[in-house]
Amino acid sequence: MNQNKPQTLKGFRDFLPEVMMVRNYVKNIFIETFETFGFQPLETPSLEYASTLMGKYGAEADKLVYSFIDQGDRQIGLRYDLTVPTAKILAIYQDLPKPFKRYQIQPVWRGEKPQKGRYREVLQCDVDTFGTTSPLADAEIVAVIYTALEKLGFKKYSIRINSRKVLLDLLVKSGITDSQKSVLQSLDKFQKIGLDGVTKELISKDINQGTITRLFEYIKTAQPDENLQLVFNAIKQLGVPNDKYIFDPTMVRGLDYYTGTIFETYVEEPKIGSVTGGGRYDNLVKTLGGPNIPAVGTTLGLDRIVDCILELNLLPNLPKTKTKVLVANFGSETINESLSLTSNLRQNNIATSFYPDSDKLGKQFKYADSLGIPYVAVIGPDEAKAGTVTLKNMSTGDQKTILQQDLIKQLI
Amino acid sequence: MNQNKPQTLKGFRDFLPEVMMVRNYVKNIFIETFETFGFQPLETPSLEYASTLMGKYGAEADKLVYSFIDQGDRQIGLRYDLTVPTAKILAIYQDLPKPFKRYQIQPVWRGEKPQKGRYREVLQCDVDTFGTTSPLADAEIVAVIYTALEKLGFKKYSIRINSRKVLLDLLVKSGITDSQKSVLQSLDKFQKIGLDGVTKELISKDINQGTITRLFEYIKTAQPDENLQLVFNAIKQLGVPNDKYIFDPTMVRGLDYYTGTIFETYVEEPKIGSVTGGGRYDNLVKTLGGPNIPAVGTTLGLDRIVDCILELNLLPNLPKTKTKVLVANFGSETINESLSLTSNLRQNNIATSFYPDSDKLGKQFKYADSLGIPYVAVIGPDEAKAGTVTLKNMSTGDQKTILQQDLIKQLI
Repeated sequence: MNQNKPQTLKGFRDFLPEVMMVRNYVKNIFIETFETFGFQPLETPSLEYASTLMGKYGAEADKLVYSFIDQGDRQIGLRYDLTVPTAKILAIYQDLPKPFKRYQIQPVWRGEKPQKGRYREVLQCDVDTFGTTSPLADAEIVAVIYTALEKLGFKKYSIRINSRKVLLDLLVKSGITDSQKSVLQSLDKFQKIGLDGVTKELISKDINQGTITRLFEYIKTAQPDENLQLVFNAIKQLGVPNDKYIFDPTMVRGLDYYTGTIFETYVEEPKIGSVTGGGRYDNLVKTLGGPNIPAVGTTLGLDRIVDCILELNLLPNLPKTKTKVLVANFGSETINESLSLTSNLRQNNIATSFYPDSDKLGKQFKYADSLGIPYVAVIGPDEAKAGTVTLKNMSTGDQKTILQQDLIKQLI
Repeated sequence: MNQNKPQTLKGFRDFLPEVMMVRNYVKNIFIETFETFGFQPLETPSLEYASTLMGKYGAEADKLVYSFIDQGDRQIGLRYDLTVPTAKILAIYQDLPKPFKRYQIQPVWRGEKPQKGRYREVLQCDVDTFGTTSPLADAEIVAVIYTALEKLGFKKYSIRINSRKVLLDLLVKSGITDSQKSVLQSLDKFQKIGLDGVTKELISKDINQGTITRLFEYIKTAQPDENLQLVFNAIKQLGVPNDKYIFDPTMVRGLDYYTGTIFETYVEEPKIGSVTGGGRYDNLVKTLGGPNIPAVGTTLGLDRIVDCILELNLLPNLPKTKTKVLVANFGSETINESLSLTSNLRQNNIATSFYPDSDKLGKQFKYADSLGIPYVAVIGPDEAKAGTVTLKNMSTGDQKTILQQDLIKQLI
C-alpha cells in the first residue's frame, strides 16, 4: 500500500451523495414500516467478545467473522449479523417487557470473497419479536416484508415459507438422525450447486444414495404442519394477498440457529433475487447463557435492493439533492445581503446552499446544475439597491427578478 | 469470558429502545440542520488501510486506533474519525463538484480507557466543506453549530473560535520554531492539567521558562488576524447572535491536521462541556495523496448531548414509543377480527402493535403501559358481533366502545 495512492479496501464501498439519497430513501421506508408494525429501535455495539459470535452461524460462516485481539488482550469480533447481538441483549437485560419487538439497522461485516453484489460491509435491517412462540408473531414478520416491498413499488415477488421442524421430520423419516445441521447446510446449496452438487456433498457426508433419493422424494411432496397452517391463516388475516407468499419445502436457509418457521423472499421483477432471510430461533438466547426466550424475525437486505434500484434506474423522480436553492456569491459589494438572504431562507426551512467564492456566475450556475439544485438566487448591486433578488430556474433556464421578501413563497 | 455469562465489551454500549428514541431525536435534528445548510449525505467504510489512518491525528491518538491484520494479510484499521476517510474520498474521486459539502453520521472507534462520558464507540456527526479557502465557509460551520444547538433548546453555550495561524504566529514570536505541533498538543491540555501542568510538559520538551512565560503573555493579549475578522463578519451576517460565539486565543484543539480557523463549543447550561470540535485543515487531502483541496468542518458530539439529555431529563415530553395502539388478543374466537383491525390501522399509518398471545387482558394492559403505548383496542365476542371495538386510554384509564370504522379518526 503506497501512501501516495489512497485506496478503499476491496469489498468495501464509499457512498457518494447521489447513492446515499437512494439508500436513505429505502432505509426510511423500512423504518416507517417497522414502526407502523410496533417495532422499537435498538442498537448494539459493532464489537463483541468473539465467544459471543462464534459457534452460532455454522462452521463455514464462523471463518468469515472479522476477529482480532484488542489492546486489552481480549479476543473480539466485528458484528456478523444483528440476530446474535440482540439475543445477547435478551440474555443480559432479562427484565425487558415481553414480547420484545425491536428493529435494528446497522452494518455487519463478513470476510467474504468480494464479487458482484457481495460486500464485506453491508447494512442489515432486521425486525424480530422475542418472547413468544405464537405463530401470529411469525405471520407478522411476513406482513412486514410484504408491506415494505409494496411501499418500494415491487410487483413480482414471492415470500417463500418453510419450517425447520418440517425439514427435520423429513430427515428423520428418511433415516437421517445424525449431523442433521450439516445435512441442512448441504440442502441449502440446492439453488447454487443443483441436485447433483448437493447429492455429491451428502455422499461425502456419509449419507447413502438410497437415503438421499428418499429424502428428495419426501421434500417434493411435503405439506405444512399444524403450526405452519396457523401461520398461513394469520398471514391471510393480516391482509397479505395469497399470490405474494408460498409454502416452499425446498427452502432451507443456511444458518445453524433456526428451529421453526423460515422465510426467504425472491424478487422476480425487477430481477433482484433474494432480498430477505429469516426465521424462528427459539434456542439462541439460551445458547448465549440467557433464559429460555423464543424468537422470530427477518433481515431485509438493503444493499441488494439499492443496487437494483440504481442499476435499473427504478426511481427516476428521486431528486439528486434535497438542496432547493443556491445563493450565488456576487462578490464583496453584496455579500452581506446575500448572507442575510441565505440565513433568512434557512430560518424558513428552505434547504439553501451558499457559494463561498466570488467565481464567475456562469461557473456558479454550472455548479448548481451539476448537483441538481433546482434554483439559483442572485443579489447583484442593482438587486441589493432595490431589495430584490434574481431567481433562475435551472431546469427551464427562466429568470425573474422579485422582491426578496417574496422569495420564500416561490420556493416552498 | 465464560460462554454462560454474556457480556457487552467495556467502553461499548447497548442502546435500548427508550434511549434510541432520544438518540434518534437528536440525530434527526442534526440531519435536518445539515440539509437546511445544503450539506449532502456521505458514508465511508468502517475499515480502511491502516496507512490511510495513521500519522494524521498525532502520536498519542495513533495508539488508540483499532488496528489489526485481516484474512488477506492487510494491515487495516477501524475508522477513528470521519475527517480522514472523507479526505480520502476527495483524494480518490477528484471529479466531485467543488465546493463539496457533505455531512456524515457514522460511528468511530477509539481504544480509550473507558470512563464516564468516554466510550470506545461513539456516533460522530460531521459537516465539512471541501474545495474552498473562503472564510465564508468557516462562518457557515459556526452557523450550523448555532442552528443545531438552538433547535435542541440549549440556552447558555459559547462557540469558541481561534486560529492555528494566530497560534503559530505567537509560537514564532515567542521564539519557538521547532516541534510546533508537539507544543500545541501540550497547550491543548490547559483545561485538563492547568498552567503548571502545561509548563512542566513544555519544559520537558526543551522549551525554557522564559519562552513559556512570553508565550502565555502573547496568548492572553492576542487579537484575531485579518482572515478571522472576515469569518466573524460573516458569522454575524448569517444571523448568529454575538453572545453565542467568542474569540478565544487559548483554545488549541488536539489534532495534528488543523491549519487555520478552529472551533470548539462549550455548553454551560445544562453543564455538558465540549460538544463540538473542528477547524480548517487545508493540507489533509494532499497528505493522503490527493490534489491540493482545502477544507473546513466540525464534529457534533451526539453521545455527550444524549447523555446529558438523559441525565437531566431535558425532554420529558418525548414519547417512550412511537406505537400508538396495542390491539389485544382475546383468544381464537375473535382472532380474525383482531388481526383485520390491526392490518386496517397499519394501512392508515397508525403505528399498531398486536399482542401475539392470548394472555389475560390485565397482563396485556400492563404490557402496553410498560412500553408507554397510549391506547389498547380490544375486540371480544360482543364487540365482534356488533362490529365494535373497546378502546382503553392508558393514561386516564377511560374506556369506551365505538364502531370499528370510527377507530381510525380517534387515533389520528
